[in-house]
Amino acid sequence: MVGEHDREGSGLPRTLAEAVQPAPEPVRLLGAVSTVRSLGGVTFVILRDRTGTIQVVLPGEADLPREAVVEVIGHSRADARAPGGVEVEAAAITVLGRPAARLPLEIGKPVLRASLETVLDHRALSLRHPTIAAAFHVAAALAGGFRCYLAGCGFTEIHTSKLVATATEGGAGLFRVEYPERPAYLAQSPQLYKQICVGAFERVFEIGPVYRNEPHETARHLNEYTSLDVEVGFIDLDGLLTLETALLQAMLQEVREQAGQAIETLGITLPSVERIPRLTLAQAQERLAGAGASSDGVPVAPGADLDPAGERALGRLYAEEGSDFVFVTHYPAAARPFYALPDPRDPERTLSFDLLFRGLEVTTGGMRIHDYTQLRENMVRFRLDPGSFGGYLEAFACGMPPHGGFAIGLERLTAQLIGASNIRWTTLFPRDLRRLEP
Amino acid sequence: MVGEHDREGSGLPRTLAEAVQPAPEPVRLLGAVSTVRSLGGVTFVILRDRTGTIQVVLPGEADLPREAVVEVIGHSRADARAPGGVEVEAAAITVLGRPAARLPLEIGKPVLRASLETVLDHRALSLRHPTIAAAFHVAAALAGGFRCYLAGCGFTEIHTSKLVATATEGGAGLFRVEYPERPAYLAQSPQLYKQICVGAFERVFEIGPVYRNEPHETARHLNEYTSLDVEVGFIDLDGLLTLETALLQAMLQEVREQAGQAIETLGITLPSVERIPRLTLAQAQERLAGAGASSDGVPVAPGADLDPAGERALGRLYAEEGSDFVFVTHYPAAARPFYALPDPRDPERTLSFDLLFRGLEVTTGGMRIHDYTQLRENMVRFRLDPGSFGGYLEAFACGMPPHGGFAIGLERLTAQLIGASNIRWTTLFPRDLRRLEP
Repeated sequence: MVGEHDREGSGLPRTLAEAVQPAPEPVRLLGAVSTVRSLGGVTFVILRDRTGTIQVVLPGEADLPREAVVEVIGHSRADARAPGGVEVEAAAITVLGRPAARLPLEIGKPVLRASLETVLDHRALSLRHPTIAAAFHVAAALAGGFRCYLAGCGFTEIHTSKLVATATEGGAGLFRVEYPERPAYLAQSPQLYKQICVGAFERVFEIGPVYRNEPHETARHLNEYTSLDVEVGFIDLDGLLTLETALLQAMLQEVREQAGQAIETLGITLPSVERIPRLTLAQAQERLAGAGASSDGVPVAPGADLDPAGERALGRLYAEEGSDFVFVTHYPAAARPFYALPDPRDPERTLSFDLLFRGLEVTTGGMRIHDYTQLRENMVRFRLDPGSFGGYLEAFACGMPPHGGFAIGLERLTAQLIGASNIRWTTLFPRDLRRLEP
Repeated sequence: MVGEHDREGSGLPRTLAEAVQPAPEPVRLLGAVSTVRSLGGVTFVILRDRTGTIQVVLPGEADLPREAVVEVIGHSRADARAPGGVEVEAAAITVLGRPAARLPLEIGKPVLRASLETVLDHRALSLRHPTIAAAFHVAAALAGGFRCYLAGCGFTEIHTSKLVATATEGGAGLFRVEYPERPAYLAQSPQLYKQICVGAFERVFEIGPVYRNEPHETARHLNEYTSLDVEVGFIDLDGLLTLETALLQAMLQEVREQAGQAIETLGITLPSVERIPRLTLAQAQERLAGAGASSDGVPVAPGADLDPAGERALGRLYAEEGSDFVFVTHYPAAARPFYALPDPRDPERTLSFDLLFRGLEVTTGGMRIHDYTQLRENMVRFRLDPGSFGGYLEAFACGMPPHGGFAIGLERLTAQLIGASNIRWTTLFPRDLRRLEP
């Protein structure tokens, strides 16, 4: 049971954790019936709320379906045999919410035996299972740590529009929205907006949904996910990597502090992020070629791009050396968007990076072009029409600081952290080719 | 200048506030040129970053356009004549970002003389003006205070899908999205999802965009806004009003602490939220009828609904009595969505509320139906097909606690707080009938 206390004057009800201590006064408990067991003329009920569980004892038999939501008035007493060491003898029990049907999933047992499809089809119920809910407690702590750390560093939180007139990065994969008079699209990222905002606020972050019309169904892509976006003025590539390292440390610390019970439920160990190794893509390719294998057994040639199999192979190499994370930097200009800043020492490469976590990319970022003329020319090189980026280009025409940033996929980071095999395990209501409900 | 310090090891550059104190060592400043003035053979530059401004002195004339982003190496010294009492004598100045064009707006003066249309058309530049930027510092503090208070009360932050298969509340005003195989819609609110999540997490909040296809252009509506959503299990109407009061106190405290400079720039006084008066809609109508006037001079009859003019009139009545806020409760069932819980003592009324702030509704909320059968019957009464709400109804079929919640419109709350006449002043990239860019 978590020893958490609500703030006074909040209007919030007392939780099981707050309501129950062995005491002479009657206690009032509010919770859901997790299990019911009759034994020797009495009924033992395990009552559950968000802070944990408590055992309630009722005289005789009780007509209490599992998941019924009840109010119990009773007396609490220490009892070494009860889970948690306290039990409540009920004087009165009132059903506040009665399940109307047979439950489609068995959620009373420690392990939920159901396929991902079934879990998603019955989201309202499956979310109540501790092992399923744990992922979202971890995700909430990650987002909380992200925000808290950045706000403490003077970042301004922004909320930018998800309805845009043109493709952010000029690519395919857009969702079209019927908008008055002309079509709109769902934003693939807040990239251009966060850059505009750097011109005004210098340091910004945003937590919000982004959209990719994914033509394939994979374990690591969805049509909608939560992007943790950062953009910073007056920084360089080295600063960005240092910032993300410090940020991840803060986020993992928040998971330790705020989602300890979830971590215990999942039985996982959090990675340490002391120093994250950094290597260029060229160096990564050499290492892989030296190691002689991508994950599918095909030797990797220097100069080749880093595909998912290469990312996994690189992840394994660094895991053996004790790091779950590795920064890969200096991707070729052709493999990055038009706004990526070329390395002045090698204009075919960009001052960009990916962060791999256990062999999967969880962050993409880098320095951006901040010179108006260079940016405009690069747009043309990428076959984009500068005329459709007027509001964005204005920021550069008015003078922009050198800047860079990155974006972390929240569901993907959570999945890698808890060892989920599919991003759908860490997405509340996933959206893909086939799934639009619940 | 804000006395804020970056965390060590964050990789972040030093701000003007951090970089400058009278000291013998050379300092390095990074910022934008706010104003340039030549006088007696030297040039005075006011350099600006997110922490404030500082005066830089250059020998001779300088070719420095306003908004140029520069690096200055120099020595700082105390000078009572300089704004802030410190100035930096530049030994070297490098332009990092040069404005390419004449600036479309004059942003170097304390007051920005431009219409709302012009301000929005030139968003990248107008955002750099302190009076425009201030609104977003206030909004960020409000969102930060919201999140921080609720997380401290054991709420779990959720991220629900904005792509839905059916209308949340069965109404018009939906944006249709081209989705593979069948149409999707942009969610009007996370209402149904946050209720599902209450069944699992008991206390949840979400900060995210919501969509309304508004057929009219008004000063208080947009097609997209940021909703601060709360949903709580085991609470009652009184608890909800108490919770929102405590929450607003915390949010305003965060504005005081984190956006003090913005408050000063805007020259506003924050309201106090000691105790918010509560009255039923029927009582509100009686008071208005007693006072004999809606804002447009038409007397308000008891029994009439509360229209915007009535809300303004009520706001004025309570302002005279010293409260900027007033809770109006018990709206008729016909005026609320299908999930609103009828008052058991008067089923024609619901246990619902609006919060008026200076005569404008900034929150809608209330208790929800938690009984499966009652909810299903109410759907039918509202001419909704329960078959299209399967994933939502499952939560109730599996047992739900009594619960309620509310939603605060972030941009609207900010606008009322800073006295903005149009919600577009407090929206970064507003979307309406005509505006989809920048």
